[in-house]
Amino acid sequence: MNTIGFAMRLTLFGSSHGPGVGSVLDGCPSGVPITTETIQREVDLRKPAPGIGTARAEEDIVQVQSGILEGRTTGAPIQFFIANKDSDSSKYQAFRVTPRPGHADYPALVKYGPDHDMRGGGQFSGRMTAPLVAAGAVAKSMLVTKGVRIAAYSQSIGKVTDDKERSFSEISENRFNHSTRAADSRVAARMEREILAAAKDGDSVGGIVRCLVDGLPVGVGEPFFDSLDAELAKMMFAIPAVKGVDFGAGFRSTKMRGSEHNDPFKIVNGQVTTVTNHAGGILGGLSDGMPLDLRVAFKPTASIAKEQWTVDLKRKKDTIIKVQGRHDPCIVPRAVVVVEAAAALVIADLSLRGGFFAR
Amino acid sequence: MNTIGFAMRLTLFGSSHGPGVGSVLDGCPSGVPITTETIQREVDLRKPAPGIGTARAEEDIVQVQSGILEGRTTGAPIQFFIANKDSDSSKYQAFRVTPRPGHADYPALVKYGPDHDMRGGGQFSGRMTAPLVAAGAVAKSMLVTKGVRIAAYSQSIGKVTDDKERSFSEISENRFNHSTRAADSRVAARMEREILAAAKDGDSVGGIVRCLVDGLPVGVGEPFFDSLDAELAKMMFAIPAVKGVDFGAGFRSTKMRGSEHNDPFKIVNGQVTTVTNHAGGILGGLSDGMPLDLRVAFKPTASIAKEQWTVDLKRKKDTIIKVQGRHDPCIVPRAVVVVEAAAALVIADLSLRGGFFAR
Amino acid sequence: MNTIGFAMRLTLFGSSHGPGVGSVLDGCPSGVPITTETIQREVDLRKPAPGIGTARAEEDIVQVQSGILEGRTTGAPIQFFIANKDSDSSKYQAFRVTPRPGHADYPALVKYGPDHDMRGGGQFSGRMTAPLVAAGAVAKSMLVTKGVRIAAYSQSIGKVTDDKERSFSEISENRFNHSTRAADSRVAARMEREILAAAKDGDSVGGIVRCLVDGLPVGVGEPFFDSLDAELAKMMFAIPAVKGVDFGAGFRSTKMRGSEHNDPFKIVNGQVTTVTNHAGGILGGLSDGMPLDLRVAFKPTASIAKEQWTVDLKRKKDTIIKVQGRHDPCIVPRAVVVVEAAAALVIADLSLRGGFFAR
Amino acid sequence: MNTIGFAMRLTLFGSSHGPGVGSVLDGCPSGVPITTETIQREVDLRKPAPGIGTARAEEDIVQVQSGILEGRTTGAPIQFFIANKDSDSSKYQAFRVTPRPGHADYPALVKYGPDHDMRGGGQFSGRMTAPLVAAGAVAKSMLVTKGVRIAAYSQSIGKVTDDKERSFSEISENRFNHSTRAADSRVAARMEREILAAAKDGDSVGGIVRCLVDGLPVGVGEPFFDSLDAELAKMMFAIPAVKGVDFGAGFRSTKMRGSEHNDPFKIVNGQVTTVTNHAGGILGGLSDGMPLDLRVAFKPTASIAKEQWTVDLKRKKDTIIKVQGRHDPCIVPRAVVVVEAAAALVIADLSLRGGFFAR
Repeated sequence: MNTIGFAMRLTLFGSSHGPGVGSVLDGCPSGVPITTETIQREVDLRKPAPGIGTARAEEDIVQVQSGILEGRTTGAPIQFFIANKDSDSSKYQAFRVTPRPGHADYPALVKYGPDHDMRGGGQFSGRMTAPLVAAGAVAKSMLVTKGVRIAAYSQSIGKVTDDKERSFSEISENRFNHSTRAADSRVAARMEREILAAAKDGDSVGGIVRCLVDGLPVGVGEPFFDSLDAELAKMMFAIPAVKGVDFGAGFRSTKMRGSEHNDPFKIVNGQVTTVTNHAGGILGGLSDGMPLDLRVAFKPTASIAKEQWTVDLKRKKDTIIKVQGRHDPCIVPRAVVVVEAAAALVIADLSLRGGFFAR
Repeated sequence: MNTIGFAMRLTLFGSSHGPGVGSVLDGCPSGVPITTETIQREVDLRKPAPGIGTARAEEDIVQVQSGILEGRTTGAPIQFFIANKDSDSSKYQAFRVTPRPGHADYPALVKYGPDHDMRGGGQFSGRMTAPLVAAGAVAKSMLVTKGVRIAAYSQSIGKVTDDKERSFSEISENRFNHSTRAADSRVAARMEREILAAAKDGDSVGGIVRCLVDGLPVGVGEPFFDSLDAELAKMMFAIPAVKGVDFGAGFRSTKMRGSEHNDPFKIVNGQVTTVTNHAGGILGGLSDGMPLDLRVAFKPTASIAKEQWTVDLKRKKDTIIKVQGRHDPCIVPRAVVVVEAAAALVIADLSLRGGFFAR
Repeated sequence: MNTIGFAMRLTLFGSSHGPGVGSVLDGCPSGVPITTETIQREVDLRKPAPGIGTARAEEDIVQVQSGILEGRTTGAPIQFFIANKDSDSSKYQAFRVTPRPGHADYPALVKYGPDHDMRGGGQFSGRMTAPLVAAGAVAKSMLVTKGVRIAAYSQSIGKVTDDKERSFSEISENRFNHSTRAADSRVAARMEREILAAAKDGDSVGGIVRCLVDGLPVGVGEPFFDSLDAELAKMMFAIPAVKGVDFGAGFRSTKMRGSEHNDPFKIVNGQVTTVTNHAGGILGGLSDGMPLDLRVAFKPTASIAKEQWTVDLKRKKDTIIKVQGRHDPCIVPRAVVVVEAAAALVIADLSLRGGFFAR
Repeated sequence: MNTIGFAMRLTLFGSSHGPGVGSVLDGCPSGVPITTETIQREVDLRKPAPGIGTARAEEDIVQVQSGILEGRTTGAPIQFFIANKDSDSSKYQAFRVTPRPGHADYPALVKYGPDHDMRGGGQFSGRMTAPLVAAGAVAKSMLVTKGVRIAAYSQSIGKVTDDKERSFSEISENRFNHSTRAADSRVAARMEREILAAAKDGDSVGGIVRCLVDGLPVGVGEPFFDSLDAELAKMMFAIPAVKGVDFGAGFRSTKMRGSEHNDPFKIVNGQVTTVTNHAGGILGGLSDGMPLDLRVAFKPTASIAKEQWTVDLKRKKDTIIKVQGRHDPCIVPRAVVVVEAAAALVIADLSLRGGFFAR
């Protein structure tokens, strides 16, 4: 359903082409400093970049209608509303009969029946992540008061991969300087070319968002099932187009020997640290004090301009469609701030549960 | 915490070296046919194989103390208890001071303090998956009544990878014929050698479990957040040693074009199907009628016989330990039935939520 | 926190004197017929009646911003927003120092600190029930499609008690004909005088709302803990000013013998019924097919015009306050539709859980 | 379902005549001092008293199989198991056809079908409260470490009512000195006669358990829906035979004026207190620092020796049954420790949520 989190809970509502999209963030402690400007700035980071993003031009003005008073949270639920302004629903009714490949159309029609709101993907739209980012801004602000910071970037887009190991501060400083959300100018240029090439072909590309979290205290996570990795993975897979998640060495760890993979502990400046971070900051589902290191795999955007085979559900026969509309040739750059917000919400929730924040 | 699921909920309890481990499965409809023998058979599939598994010899006799009467579920919570018989706690007290690399010891000590049960990893032990498998047997039985079947196998162990595309029935028939849980004899032999080579070195290897689900109806999953992939991922990451999860083309999809990745719909025998299955049976977080296809990455076993650097928490200095005890050089073969049980529990839960089972 | 329900969940947000109040109803099946007019009509029934209600004049226009399209639910979350128009916050800052007796002021200040939104009671305001009523309209409409109907009335106000046993249809037809929500004109007149007498004294009165539910199928409720009575009671106690809940013979049953209290079963027109209904339609936490019969006790409104002793929290000494503002001398009449909505939400949720509605 | 609580969760399992009954308590912080002896002592207080209780003689030996080590909680789930020893199922099969008035038999058969475990009421049995009491012992012990103490007593049994206002310490000291759980010897004698008179008639009586909680900090409760009263009420209504719950002046408050009901604040020894406690220690769903005061109404035991009218579900006709078996003529005395345990579990949970306990 449309609520996630435990001690701090996010509820989403709205749809791509209805009056708007919004969210309610419940359980945030009172007294967290947060302004509408900060929230708006985060939501703006999710907007499509000229050239490489969709032509749909949403203002995405965030209205805060509950829970924040004079720049601080009151302890009541916080509500965000973002009106839809530039929706064009004219082209979607056809998909009730000829569902788009790679989209939720077909199973959604089976599940919800004829009353399913098909316009723009309805409740399955990537637009649902806008109010998630607004809520994430509050979670980030809350975490910063304890020294926990989050930074994600585009680690790969299509066949362009950024293999370089990068420090948290490097990522943190650079990621929003490039419309591709690359951590480095040279990689950014190559990624931009990759996206434009796909767009020119009426096609799309995917990629990987890597997310680091710095300053996490030891012991965040609630085993057995609400472990730090399990909760993060659940949240990430809720983001549309995500097809894979791993932590630290992740899938690569399957080819390592234990003696290579185990991160040796070491005292550095009186603190327990590990020499390597193959575990990605998580041991036994708990944060171990090292930076959290998470990768999220995004498939190429399902909406492409090319002709595609689909079926006519009425006549029960194969047919070809051409999906009109305005779409991103690559969703990865816009997803970077979404992954950050998603991570912030999970970590804030688990930190509250673990007693790292006073109510 | 130790409960997962919504309409059908699993609660785990126990610890590696306490009186035993167990689980409670709540919300199972009445009338599901299930015998103690079936449950025991599944739990036995999790036992270590001679040669490639741990020397700890647990009988793992499952006692069902609630919820099943005369071979059928009653609608009351089902409880399983598996006594610990062969635990040897003598070697674990040292890890309170010198935590084992790759294990939960260090963050668990920080989180739970001196009362944390350290013996055998306590509540973080892989042994907690035994009662999960018992509960999974009920979920499997429930799903089979609707034609939903699950089969997993070792797709890779260390550097041995089974690249061949395999049919559901091939996997289903072969997977438990080999102690490595490979889907094929030749691969099995190579995987066994890979494990034995690591064991001989006092080392360990990881691998990938791939899990297929056949016969799933269309529309299983509860978006936005309780989608089929999100719920499966959360459950899988709760299994100890899991470091990655992906669906269908998963991480590979990040390098594909949309025109290549989108699965074209096609009518086959009057049914809506897709030509390819890059989506792994999931669109928009809902099952789409194609086989669910999920990969779970396991890191190499953290317990190895080699000397390792760690820290002495009392003296705040680096030191070397050698982890004694009886351990699996590779956990992957034993994890195959665990992944199946985990998948069965999630799918049974979401199927109940979606109304695919009457209460 | 601000979410209740399981398969169908209500989340409240807003505060008495902020931009507005609202709610999100998630999990409602698609295809439920419901219009904005129906929702508005229910919310209007909660408005204060001239003479016996508060002078605060809120228009209470309900905006539906998600989940309803062309007169039917879509399956997506339904969102309601009601702007605050006539709030006057000028008089509330004083209560930070001198909390009002009978209100949440004092414990809320301790719990939330200086950032607590004190204006009009903030998130503790009875105004939070307006969006609950909006959501209840959808639940009622959903239940009606299965023949389940709900009717509540003022059974007592102050010392005026309506002792007469009344049929469901009598209550259903009359309850909204009288501003006191009495089930009978003569009682209504006496109740009105009771309220006016209190108002004239600058004082307030309480009362009892009785709620009947007709047409409930057998077996609604999810024991052990989510039983029909437990879930209803939880919801009712969340309504501000509620101090007691009982079912059927309720507190009176404590003085009965078992032979008197047990409702004998009887076949009537081929149906299993009971001769009496001391159980109030609930056996073992499950609906038994007889009308649900529930009483909710409301304390007298805490806001009164009389002088009252309180404490000065800064100076730590006793002092006298006079609470200004516009208040209801009796909340019971306005609470009748709230109790109905609350009951509808719980029953719709448990009916979904029990499989009485298809998704 | 069979789990209640949020930060600290109780899961029940078992049935009246199966292998046993048990519970899992999850979320209890590590380091709470608790011995098996303390737990056993509490469970023993639930046993029937000779003469006034049932003849079913259960030893009720509590086995703790998880979560407690060397007299302290470890932070892992705590599990309790109590074997059934003296069950006699011979007489229950008949009730599948002729359900007992006042029992769950009829709706349970409709809900769960022929696989419902009918023996001794199955999962609806009052015996399910034994493992609840065991868990409550841990919650009590946890609360005592913060100075929170709980004491309940039989305030009325049948027509014998204890009208006297009694102090917490008087109740606390006396309640378990009398088999009726009266707070005073003279009342105890009258209550005992009331029970014996009913028993002699083959009949039963009900009564009221009043429960006080002393030492509760200010601000316990999580509005809007998880308020202190709402959570307590839900838990209490889950206890079999409960038909009403109120707080403080409760139902009596409906006949009071606001000026009479509002509890004036007063500084006593530098502390904020109230002069009266009509609110029962709860304002706005939050504890206000005064003693929590809660009344729970129990109906007369449904099982009576007298002949009763019921229906034959097969032949669809009315018939007479005589319920054999061993039953309590009054459940109230045994319920006193159950109410205490239930209150302790709710308060411990909400205290954890409110940050009054460190994890």
